[in-house]
Amino acid sequence: MTVREVKVGNVVFGGDRTVLIAGPCAVEGLQMLQTVAGAARAGGADMLRGGAFKPRTSPYSFQGLGVEGYRMLDKVRREQGMPVVSEVMAVDQIEPALEYIDMFQIGARNMHNFTLLSAVGRAGVPVLLKRGFMATVEEWLMAAEYVVKEGNEQVVLCERGIRTFEPWTRATLDISSVPLVRGMGGYPVVVDPCHSSGRRDLLEPLSLAAIGAGADGLMLEVHPDPDKALSDGGQSLSVVDFEAIADKVHRLDEWIREHINSDTIER
Amino acid sequence: MTVREVKVGNVVFGGDRTVLIAGPCAVEGLQMLQTVAGAARAGGADMLRGGAFKPRTSPYSFQGLGVEGYRMLDKVRREQGMPVVSEVMAVDQIEPALEYIDMFQIGARNMHNFTLLSAVGRAGVPVLLKRGFMATVEEWLMAAEYVVKEGNEQVVLCERGIRTFEPWTRATLDISSVPLVRGMGGYPVVVDPCHSSGRRDLLEPLSLAAIGAGADGLMLEVHPDPDKALSDGGQSLSVVDFEAIADKVHRLDEWIREHINSDTIER
Amino acid sequence: MTVREVKVGNVVFGGDRTVLIAGPCAVEGLQMLQTVAGAARAGGADMLRGGAFKPRTSPYSFQGLGVEGYRMLDKVRREQGMPVVSEVMAVDQIEPALEYIDMFQIGARNMHNFTLLSAVGRAGVPVLLKRGFMATVEEWLMAAEYVVKEGNEQVVLCERGIRTFEPWTRATLDISSVPLVRGMGGYPVVVDPCHSSGRRDLLEPLSLAAIGAGADGLMLEVHPDPDKALSDGGQSLSVVDFEAIADKVHRLDEWIREHINSDTIER
Amino acid sequence: MTVREVKVGNVVFGGDRTVLIAGPCAVEGLQMLQTVAGAARAGGADMLRGGAFKPRTSPYSFQGLGVEGYRMLDKVRREQGMPVVSEVMAVDQIEPALEYIDMFQIGARNMHNFTLLSAVGRAGVPVLLKRGFMATVEEWLMAAEYVVKEGNEQVVLCERGIRTFEPWTRATLDISSVPLVRGMGGYPVVVDPCHSSGRRDLLEPLSLAAIGAGADGLMLEVHPDPDKALSDGGQSLSVVDFEAIADKVHRLDEWIREHINSDTIER
Repeated sequence: MTVREVKVGNVVFGGDRTVLIAGPCAVEGLQMLQTVAGAARAGGADMLRGGAFKPRTSPYSFQGLGVEGYRMLDKVRREQGMPVVSEVMAVDQIEPALEYIDMFQIGARNMHNFTLLSAVGRAGVPVLLKRGFMATVEEWLMAAEYVVKEGNEQVVLCERGIRTFEPWTRATLDISSVPLVRGMGGYPVVVDPCHSSGRRDLLEPLSLAAIGAGADGLMLEVHPDPDKALSDGGQSLSVVDFEAIADKVHRLDEWIREHINSDTIER
Repeated sequence: MTVREVKVGNVVFGGDRTVLIAGPCAVEGLQMLQTVAGAARAGGADMLRGGAFKPRTSPYSFQGLGVEGYRMLDKVRREQGMPVVSEVMAVDQIEPALEYIDMFQIGARNMHNFTLLSAVGRAGVPVLLKRGFMATVEEWLMAAEYVVKEGNEQVVLCERGIRTFEPWTRATLDISSVPLVRGMGGYPVVVDPCHSSGRRDLLEPLSLAAIGAGADGLMLEVHPDPDKALSDGGQSLSVVDFEAIADKVHRLDEWIREHINSDTIER
Repeated sequence: MTVREVKVGNVVFGGDRTVLIAGPCAVEGLQMLQTVAGAARAGGADMLRGGAFKPRTSPYSFQGLGVEGYRMLDKVRREQGMPVVSEVMAVDQIEPALEYIDMFQIGARNMHNFTLLSAVGRAGVPVLLKRGFMATVEEWLMAAEYVVKEGNEQVVLCERGIRTFEPWTRATLDISSVPLVRGMGGYPVVVDPCHSSGRRDLLEPLSLAAIGAGADGLMLEVHPDPDKALSDGGQSLSVVDFEAIADKVHRLDEWIREHINSDTIER
Repeated sequence: MTVREVKVGNVVFGGDRTVLIAGPCAVEGLQMLQTVAGAARAGGADMLRGGAFKPRTSPYSFQGLGVEGYRMLDKVRREQGMPVVSEVMAVDQIEPALEYIDMFQIGARNMHNFTLLSAVGRAGVPVLLKRGFMATVEEWLMAAEYVVKEGNEQVVLCERGIRTFEPWTRATLDISSVPLVRGMGGYPVVVDPCHSSGRRDLLEPLSLAAIGAGADGLMLEVHPDPDKALSDGGQSLSVVDFEAIADKVHRLDEWIREHINSDTIER
């Protein structure tokens, strides 16, 4: 099955080049966002990410800056000329997001929120649909179908790991899902090694593995000072480390497309 | 820790008697609902259940009758004089549900839908919070906290099984969660053996096990003709089988309260 | 399906009374074993347990007293007139075990050790086959078949929890497996709440739940001074707590057999 | 941490080239083995695999040719001049295996068989230790320690997938374990995409992903006529498909070692 292309501004998922999405887990302030975005852009990122609304297990954790965060993302995407993806957690966040955001992320915890999926489908904006951390591949494809059914085919899937008994990683990156959903569903797939592993030392090997498996892009958390991040710092990259990984990923991707994929028949 | 009482009409969760919630998985029509409700009432049910809005993995499956289903539940609760619990899947369903429904069920797929949890908290109505089939006990307690934080302490938890590798049951009933959440959170707990097992032949032993573990109630699917149910028929009880189980559950519950619990210290 | 009876000395699994197996996780010395055995006997235990060979994840942990431990069990079973069950981890342990032990336990880590299962089958001694913490119910029944195929039908199964993502319990007690294997395989089933939960505060509710689900017996760890046990102390009962639970379990079991099971048709 | 080298005849795990192990799941006969071995050798395999003793869930399934199978492997390794790896399931199989086999495989079901691990450690032969399908990475490293403790450091680990709730693959390849055990334990790691996925269509992308993640080798099932294999045919490669994957794997491995690893610091 051929993977269908999804365009977000000048970025193409499922095209002839891997897409790198980079940025902080949460938008913490304008200046920090500008620093990360500028460095990520220079380091090879194609798209900016940043959470304005943050789904948190505890109601007492930092919940994000909300619409104010969307506005910061909007300002920075204009400055850098790069599209932005951010999470939409509820139907009433769609309206403001339409003005400020290029691609709507549906988080893992909302993959089964069918009301939200349908509403995002009707909004007609590109969607990045994360896999629920205990959803089967079939359920994930069905969730995408809730968006597509409303006439919106601009869906990119994001593998972020599933929950298992293994305690040394935050989740277990299900690398097999990459060729599975590309082959069975025809959707471009992005891999998120940060949430999958929760460990900085695994980000490079997992990024290269994802490219080997045929992923159409990667989503990486970058923070100007990872150890001071308000959320998920332990799995964020510094700007320098991001540049190093981005460079390797782009070179590997190019080489595989030229020397391996050309003679692949049923991949 | 003492379990706090939650009152829904004349029904008390965490009181001196187990609560039996019975009814069809989905409200399929008024007449069918009246039949089941009457029989369940006669057979020992304290409360009626029935889904008006149904979260379905596929957008092409039967999605429920919506507000029309709420109205049927309203009519039948008046006829039978028994309170009703039904699922609320989205914030805009809260308004109509307030008029027709006594207790709002939050389904397993929405346990992480924090927007909905907060909204239901503000509505001030008793909540039946099902455990996500991918949620740890800690996350489940945290989800309850989203409701409580809005000033609504009328929360009952419902264990409905977690996802494991075991294929002979639909999910794995985590019986340990019953004493855990009662002890750690102080919430009354209801067990749903139907969704846990997906097998009619396990409903009686699992119901009795739940009472043994200290559950404050049971939720059972009853259908006038289980093999013709529009959803989940294979795990539904006929009216006759429900009566048989209800009778045993009530007798076991009474006996345990009188002969076992009286001398339990730290249970 | 009727559960077939398995006799071990004067003890009958699958008969008209629940079987309580009690004793320390590991045999640490003769005096300690005598103390526990005497107290357990007085407190209602039918059978003594105690590990002589201990399978340990790390090769540097305490591995048990070996054949010397078997000899202590032999001495104590004669003093107390109660049969003993102990783990056999390797084929060359079968020979000495035949002299000293009444029932051979196959541990969870050896459920897939087909060489050992066949050898134990040929030995013709009653077997207590624990479920692998990674095994499906079907695989467990197949493992039992390795014993039965050698002409040894004296097999009792023991549910000890399966591995899931839930971190608040050591494993997840799969209570549904009790009616499943009794119904599908016709084997008597014993539940081990200690290894399932790893938490002393859950032992009473899980024991009562097991009886509710129809278990034919319970295996409980008892230690004269749980907090000083060489292995698994946190999940062991003191002698006093064991007595309290044993009493409740026996009373509940009797009551259920008289008042509930008599009119159960398909349980 | 540097990965230590393990030598098996002329083959080096953890050296400067990825190791390809190929052969049938089970040795079914001499002629079939000669055909596969010759073709695999010509197609780029470094080492031959083939099961003589097969651990099977059911005692009624084909259990392998036993020592006769070892003899066939011995004959073919001499003809082809390539070392052979085969499973040893019990202590009494070690003696004959010493004569015929170059590397002892410990299967997933025996990863917790500590008696066997110690015996294989004392035998002083290179060991390929598969991960239990529900073992944590820590338990896997501890199992390796049982071999090393006996003075045998020639241990190579093999990731073959863990058990999860996902039904579209036979197991879930835990790709993160590759950099984890290399970094934490210093062992060379081989990936087995066939048992991980159980799907022929995933073998190429998973093989390339493994190389991207830093694996030191791959183990692939090759059969002259996959659809007629006595075991696991659905996940076996034809000779032609093996050649195609082997070629891509070798080219990718070389390119990564030259262009990516040279400037990796903490990989």
